[in-house]
Amino acid sequence: MTLHDEIFEQPACLRALIHNQEGTARRIAEVIRARDIKYVFLAARGTSDNAGRYANYLWGAHNRLPMALATPSLFTYYQSPPALKGALVVGVSQSGKSPDIVSVMDEGRNQGCLTLAITNAPQSPLAEHADLVFDIQSGLEKAVAATKTYTAQLMAIAMISAALAGDESRWREFENVPAWVEQMLLQDDLIARMAQRYRYMHLCVVLGRGFNYATAFEWALKLKELTYVVAEPYSSADFQHGPIAMIEGGFPVLAVAPSGLVFETMLGMLTNLRHKHDAELVVISDDDRALDLAQSPLRLPAGVPEWLTPLVSIVPAQLFACHLTLAKGYDTDQPRGLDKVTRTR
Amino acid sequence: MTLHDEIFEQPACLRALIHNQEGTARRIAEVIRARDIKYVFLAARGTSDNAGRYANYLWGAHNRLPMALATPSLFTYYQSPPALKGALVVGVSQSGKSPDIVSVMDEGRNQGCLTLAITNAPQSPLAEHADLVFDIQSGLEKAVAATKTYTAQLMAIAMISAALAGDESRWREFENVPAWVEQMLLQDDLIARMAQRYRYMHLCVVLGRGFNYATAFEWALKLKELTYVVAEPYSSADFQHGPIAMIEGGFPVLAVAPSGLVFETMLGMLTNLRHKHDAELVVISDDDRALDLAQSPLRLPAGVPEWLTPLVSIVPAQLFACHLTLAKGYDTDQPRGLDKVTRTR
Repeated sequence: MTLHDEIFEQPACLRALIHNQEGTARRIAEVIRARDIKYVFLAARGTSDNAGRYANYLWGAHNRLPMALATPSLFTYYQSPPALKGALVVGVSQSGKSPDIVSVMDEGRNQGCLTLAITNAPQSPLAEHADLVFDIQSGLEKAVAATKTYTAQLMAIAMISAALAGDESRWREFENVPAWVEQMLLQDDLIARMAQRYRYMHLCVVLGRGFNYATAFEWALKLKELTYVVAEPYSSADFQHGPIAMIEGGFPVLAVAPSGLVFETMLGMLTNLRHKHDAELVVISDDDRALDLAQSPLRLPAGVPEWLTPLVSIVPAQLFACHLTLAKGYDTDQPRGLDKVTRTR
Repeated sequence: MTLHDEIFEQPACLRALIHNQEGTARRIAEVIRARDIKYVFLAARGTSDNAGRYANYLWGAHNRLPMALATPSLFTYYQSPPALKGALVVGVSQSGKSPDIVSVMDEGRNQGCLTLAITNAPQSPLAEHADLVFDIQSGLEKAVAATKTYTAQLMAIAMISAALAGDESRWREFENVPAWVEQMLLQDDLIARMAQRYRYMHLCVVLGRGFNYATAFEWALKLKELTYVVAEPYSSADFQHGPIAMIEGGFPVLAVAPSGLVFETMLGMLTNLRHKHDAELVVISDDDRALDLAQSPLRLPAGVPEWLTPLVSIVPAQLFACHLTLAKGYDTDQPRGLDKVTRTR
């Protein structure tokens, strides 16, 4: 099972990335610092877009960089791209081949912006159109659903952030990530048993907030790609502005709620969902108060700094999606209707 | 039925808005033009966030303004807001009361940015924290699900865009919008009959692209709030990057596909969904090729300029959601679990 193998390759990939690409991250940070960057303009699709969501929070919180997510159709169909003066234009793509993402980079360069590609394909069109390239060096990813390239993209984003902040203590913190990911992989059998309960789940919502807004989106995307479950991701705040009306007894809510500054608001939401709405809860957390509310608790290692939790908390979510795919009798490596490289304009 | 009444108030609201607020739009545009604005930083939740999606495309395409959507938790829980120098900070909120949106405006002002509130409550905390206020003058909205304030927000965004572009021909174009909306309302009975077919629909996806990316999100939100259907919105491009795997025979896909630059790509997607995936289609369009693919076609008036289609195409979507709510036997005015003002941090 290629998907399962690739999930298990993550500690080694991350360890190598931290070791090999520290210099790249520092050089990229130096070039960025030398320019008067007002904000980041980021283009990505699918899993890479979820990595972009992490950058939105991390670069905002730790590097004070606001982020605009590109609307590629303005560059392709409408051919009326916005004026990007003052922007760092970033493209994130595993394959580096999606024409719409390449268009955004190209336009950024034409407008004289600094451009950065984060990709697993340093020879790709995306990389060729960028001033700066961060190669995530994950090796060939064969399963259509991205796993190891997602955590590698997150790590690249974290390394660039640490280098930009010039905070050496952050470098020490993320060196622990591969070991935390290994700890999560030890729960493989438990997660395989837990997934059985959701054999006939057809729809669910996935909640996260702050740094783990990205994790909620990525968990939902894996479920949609692999298990064909209609899984809708939300920040817990957006969820309150309307969609919470959908929840009735037994409705499955998946939640990513590690310790940190948004934990209390997530805990309040989960308590409400369990006790007032009688929802079914699958909860990824390191805090007993959140885990105790769940029919299906998934325990994170203790002590992961909040900004790095997305790198660890996605791993049980990947395993959950993988085992639910098997429980439903579907193909983990080649989902119906998808190709590894999606060429949208 | 308050919701139904408020949907029908839209032509009058829009007509009054165009008449009363032209001066406001022009004054706001003048102040914006006098500043060196690099990009827009917009904060909103729920329906207002969907209006923000329209601004993202319209101000990008017609005014060359890139847009960053705010991540309010960076301002509230994390208390590490990004550096906003060069940004026009915009808050969109019907009630003007959500504390997280007010926080973003407040921070923008503290950092010396120009701030703009688009709201139905010119005495609200949001308006009080803004340099510029666009009052959408929709009168009290009583139904919890927003309808007339949504189209009024879109109109405010369109008026500001036309004033910023200094293009008088655009002012003439949107003066036709109230009449187009009236034409849509004539289809009320037809839509009521059509909604019966979806009495037992529990989940669906909603597709749109470009300007109507906003319409897809707003249609999905109305369905979630009112009918408790799990309705997931996508751009047709993002949909191809994974979620299309969910679609099997009979799966309901709702689509907004008016004539315009993204029509051909939407048509390709709809053709594929109908003929290859055997999906059930509800299609809002003015083009027979798209309408003929649908089990449930919803015809738009001909000749609406693409940039204004979101103001017209949301109307059949609102009526569809309203009548489906009745078909399912739910309360149209007071959905379970929701209040009119949602106070998230």
